[in-house]
Amino acid sequence: MGKTRSAPTLNDVAREAGVSTATVSRCLNSPERVIETTRQRVLQAVESLGYTPNFAARVMAAKRSFTIGAIIPTMDNAIFARGLQAFQDELRERGYTLLVSSSAYDPEAEREQIRTLVARGADGLLLIGHERDPEIYDYLDRHQVPSLVAWSYAPEAKRPSVGFSNASAMRELADSVLAAGHRRVAMISGLTQGNDRALSRVEGVRQALHAAGLGEGALTLIETPYEIDKGAEAFRQLMALDPRPTVVMCGNDVLAAGALREAKGMGIAVPEQVSVTGFDDIELAGIVSPALTTVHVPHREMGRKAARELVAMVEGTSAGQPVCISTHVVARQSLAAPPDPS
Amino acid sequence: MGKTRSAPTLNDVAREAGVSTATVSRCLNSPERVIETTRQRVLQAVESLGYTPNFAARVMAAKRSFTIGAIIPTMDNAIFARGLQAFQDELRERGYTLLVSSSAYDPEAEREQIRTLVARGADGLLLIGHERDPEIYDYLDRHQVPSLVAWSYAPEAKRPSVGFSNASAMRELADSVLAAGHRRVAMISGLTQGNDRALSRVEGVRQALHAAGLGEGALTLIETPYEIDKGAEAFRQLMALDPRPTVVMCGNDVLAAGALREAKGMGIAVPEQVSVTGFDDIELAGIVSPALTTVHVPHREMGRKAARELVAMVEGTSAGQPVCISTHVVARQSLAAPPDPS
Repeated sequence: MGKTRSAPTLNDVAREAGVSTATVSRCLNSPERVIETTRQRVLQAVESLGYTPNFAARVMAAKRSFTIGAIIPTMDNAIFARGLQAFQDELRERGYTLLVSSSAYDPEAEREQIRTLVARGADGLLLIGHERDPEIYDYLDRHQVPSLVAWSYAPEAKRPSVGFSNASAMRELADSVLAAGHRRVAMISGLTQGNDRALSRVEGVRQALHAAGLGEGALTLIETPYEIDKGAEAFRQLMALDPRPTVVMCGNDVLAAGALREAKGMGIAVPEQVSVTGFDDIELAGIVSPALTTVHVPHREMGRKAARELVAMVEGTSAGQPVCISTHVVARQSLAAPPDPS
Repeated sequence: MGKTRSAPTLNDVAREAGVSTATVSRCLNSPERVIETTRQRVLQAVESLGYTPNFAARVMAAKRSFTIGAIIPTMDNAIFARGLQAFQDELRERGYTLLVSSSAYDPEAEREQIRTLVARGADGLLLIGHERDPEIYDYLDRHQVPSLVAWSYAPEAKRPSVGFSNASAMRELADSVLAAGHRRVAMISGLTQGNDRALSRVEGVRQALHAAGLGEGALTLIETPYEIDKGAEAFRQLMALDPRPTVVMCGNDVLAAGALREAKGMGIAVPEQVSVTGFDDIELAGIVSPALTTVHVPHREMGRKAARELVAMVEGTSAGQPVCISTHVVARQSLAAPPDPS
C-alpha cells in the first residue's frame, strides 16, 4: 500500500484545476504571486485528488506550516512528559501543532530527527540542552528554522534558552544536605556524556562541597542511565562501600525512586540509616515512601513559556529572549540528619 | 525569523541545477520518470540552496518519506511512554523516524494532528484505540496512508490492531478480586467517552460480577480523567460511602497510585481495610507501597510488534494483520481478602 502507488501528479492537479502546471508550481513555491481565486481552485484540486505530499495544500493556505518540532532525549519516563504537554497546550492555543521525536540520548538519532522535522516543514524546533554538534546549528541557520533550547538556562549560549540553572538548583539542595549534617555524600548521576543538564547537577553538588571546605574525596559519584533499575543497582553498590555514604543524592527522581526501592529491598531505613534526594519533583516524588526531598522544577511553566517564545521567534516578533525559570527545594521525608556514627 | 523570508523558489533550484522548472517539478512528482544523474543534480541544488520545503529532497531521494506518525491521547504520564519508545526503537532499526503528537484525549485535536502528519508526508500512522469519526478513516484512505490501531485488539474492526483485549484483561483481574472474597466492588475508571479501552475495562469488571451472580448494584463506578489527583479524589468519595466498598479497582495504575496516596493520607490501611488494584503495570506499580496488584501489559512487545506490522503495511508487504498481545495479572500486596464485617 502506501502512497507510492499511482499517486496523483502535478499534472493531474493542473488538469483538475484547469490551470497550467506552471501555475500549480507557482502556488507551491510563491503563492503570493498567485491570485486568491486561482490558489483556491488549485487548493481544491489538490484536496479532491488527495494529492500528496499535500504539503502543497498547506503551503498554499499559508506560507507557514504551523507545525513545531520538539526533540526530547526520552519518552520512556515522565521527566519531559509534563513540560512537553504544557508546551503543546500553549502551541495549540496559538494555532500550532506539535510533532515530537525522541532521540534516546543518541546524538546521531537527534541529528536525523532534526533533519526529518526540517524536511517535514517544521516552522521551529524545541531542543533539550545546549550540547550538540555546531554543524546542526549551521544546518538550522541555513534552513532558517528558529530553534529554542529548554530544560537549561545559559544566557551566554549562542541559542536562546528557556529553563533553569541545573547547577544552582542542585547546589541549593546540596547545601541543605550539608546543613542536615551530612559529610559522606554519594551521588547517582545520569550519564554526563552529551548531557549538559546532568553535568551541571554534578557541578552543583561539587560547588556546595567545595564551599563547605570538603575536598574532592568527600563525593562518591556513580553515573548511570536515568532508569529506575539503574538507580536501584547504583544504590546497592553505594551501600556496599565502607564507610557507607550517609546520603545518596540522585540526578533525578527516577533514579531516586530506584534507590528507595532497593533500600526497601535491602531493609535499609530511609532516612534513618541513609538519606536519599531526587531532582525534578515529578508526580512520582510525592507518591514513593518516604516521599522524596527533591528540587521542584516548574515543568508546566517552562513548557508554556518555551512555546510562547518559540512562536514569537517563528513569527519574527522576537529574536529569542532567554527566559529563566526558578526552581526550589521541596523538603519531604527522605532527607534527615545522618545516623550517629556507630 | 522562520522560512517565510525570501525562501528559494523552484525557479532558483532549476537555475542552480541547470534544468527546466518542469524537470524539477517532475523530480518532485514522478521521480521515476527522471534519470538518476539529473535527479542527483536537482537534489544537490535543493540541498545547497536550502530549498524548503526540502521535502523535495526526500521525495527525490525516495518516494517514501520514511516518517511514521503516532498520535497518542496523552504525554502527561507514563501510560504510553514505554510502548511508544519501543515502537520508535523498532522503527529506527528499520530506517524510519517517528513523529509523535498528543491529542490530550480531544477528538478534534486528534483530527488536526492526523491531517498535519499526513500533510507532513507521514508514510503511515499509529493510532490508539478504534473509536473515532469514520470520516477520519475515509481521509486516510483517500490519501492512501496506512494506519494501525494499538493498545486495543479488535479483530472484527475495520482497522488492523496490535494490542490486547482490555475487557478480558480486566475480567481476569476482577475474577481474582472476587476469588479473594470481595462482594462490594468499586471501580475508578478513566473517562469512557471516546475511550474504547476504558469502556472495555469497565465491561470486563461487569462481566466478572455478572458471572459471579452479582447484580448491577454490586458495582459502584466513578469515571474521572487518568490523573493521580483525580484517583485520590475519587478514592476519598468512595470511602465516604456506607457501606464502604471493600475493594477499589482502578482503570489504570496512575489512578491507583492516587488512591493509595489518599488512603495513606486518610489513615486507611491497604489492603487490610480496603484493597486497591491497577492496570498496565507501569514502573510506578512496583514502587508504590503497598506494591500494586495489577494487569501486566507488555508495552515494549506491543510497541515493537506494532512497528513491524505498520512498516510492513507501508512497504506493501502486509495488508494489516491483527496481532494479539497477551496480558496477565501480577499479584503484589495491594489486594487481599476483605476485612471481616464489623
